[in-house]
Amino acid sequence: MFAPPIQRLVAEFAKLPGVGQRTAQRLALHVLRGTDEDARALATAISEVKAQIRPCEVCFNLTDTPVCRICSDARRDPTVICVVEDAADVVSLERTHEFHGRYHVLGGALSPLDGVDPDDLHLPELYRRLRGGEVRELIVATNPTTSGEATALHLARELRSVAPQVRVTRLAAGLSVGADLEYTDEVTLGRALLGRREL
Amino acid sequence: MFAPPIQRLVAEFAKLPGVGQRTAQRLALHVLRGTDEDARALATAISEVKAQIRPCEVCFNLTDTPVCRICSDARRDPTVICVVEDAADVVSLERTHEFHGRYHVLGGALSPLDGVDPDDLHLPELYRRLRGGEVRELIVATNPTTSGEATALHLARELRSVAPQVRVTRLAAGLSVGADLEYTDEVTLGRALLGRREL
Repeated sequence: MFAPPIQRLVAEFAKLPGVGQRTAQRLALHVLRGTDEDARALATAISEVKAQIRPCEVCFNLTDTPVCRICSDARRDPTVICVVEDAADVVSLERTHEFHGRYHVLGGALSPLDGVDPDDLHLPELYRRLRGGEVRELIVATNPTTSGEATALHLARELRSVAPQVRVTRLAAGLSVGADLEYTDEVTLGRALLGRREL
Repeated sequence: MFAPPIQRLVAEFAKLPGVGQRTAQRLALHVLRGTDEDARALATAISEVKAQIRPCEVCFNLTDTPVCRICSDARRDPTVICVVEDAADVVSLERTHEFHGRYHVLGGALSPLDGVDPDDLHLPELYRRLRGGEVRELIVATNPTTSGEATALHLARELRSVAPQVRVTRLAAGLSVGADLEYTDEVTLGRALLGRREL
């Protein structure tokens, strides 16, 4: 019902996560209504992000330099590494302003059913970093999901032989700040009980 | 916290309607994770839609040809014109498969408070089409909102002098199909009562 160039744009937008047919149509019409400059800025930003962004050579965080800003920042503590599944998780953790060490992005989590084995993650590169001897603590910040927990357990087990001197910790599981006990699922509430702290 | 090329893409995505900062970030990371071809296809579709799409010379629907597919389709009844606010409304009406006439896209609705006066809409072009003498009915399919209703009333009033031979009709207001009376607002329910039909 739309002219082919509009149909193509709707189809491309509809490939984005969380964008259905209706939303894609709304976005396409928005681009059409907007100025040529706005459309060019969006198209250019898409092309440039693919051309300029690479994984960091050290930690696999996304970067436009060979080594990312965090890895090349001398003020970041090199003795603590926080292991995350995905580059987006680095942004979430940075937002807390509570972590001042370095990161290591695994590029996913172990999930044998989906065909994700240890070989598919950036584990050898992590082990190499730990063998350097500088790192004292590894914070495993994979998601509190089946695959995230499996990855954390796998890491803890491997590190006993790879780098026994490194302390391996895991993010706390418990209540969300501002949450209501009544609406908290029983697994999370159970973890909050098990992880209770002295007041 | 992201490298500048990612920040720029997030900022561009966040300009789209209904896309907040978090969603824009998710979309940008999706583009980064996808293939180069996918990114190129999206960037190209955005550029091409702006280069190739124009308003139809007759009805102001969006088209990649001088006259749109509907206006140049000889099987479409030229004696009935359906007036809509926006090109997206044409798509919604086409989806019903109940309308076989032509369209006229006004490019908005009257809203003096937002500075939208009759001069800002494609009204002269509509009057010119009606003066041709071929049109017998004008279906006013502006939205059932304050500005849509104002536009419909303005049109009906003007047409009494511009084209008195043309029958002016308005889309029915009433219950949504599948709706529940209990949850229907009183204005809509009132309209459904006023517009009741013989069974």
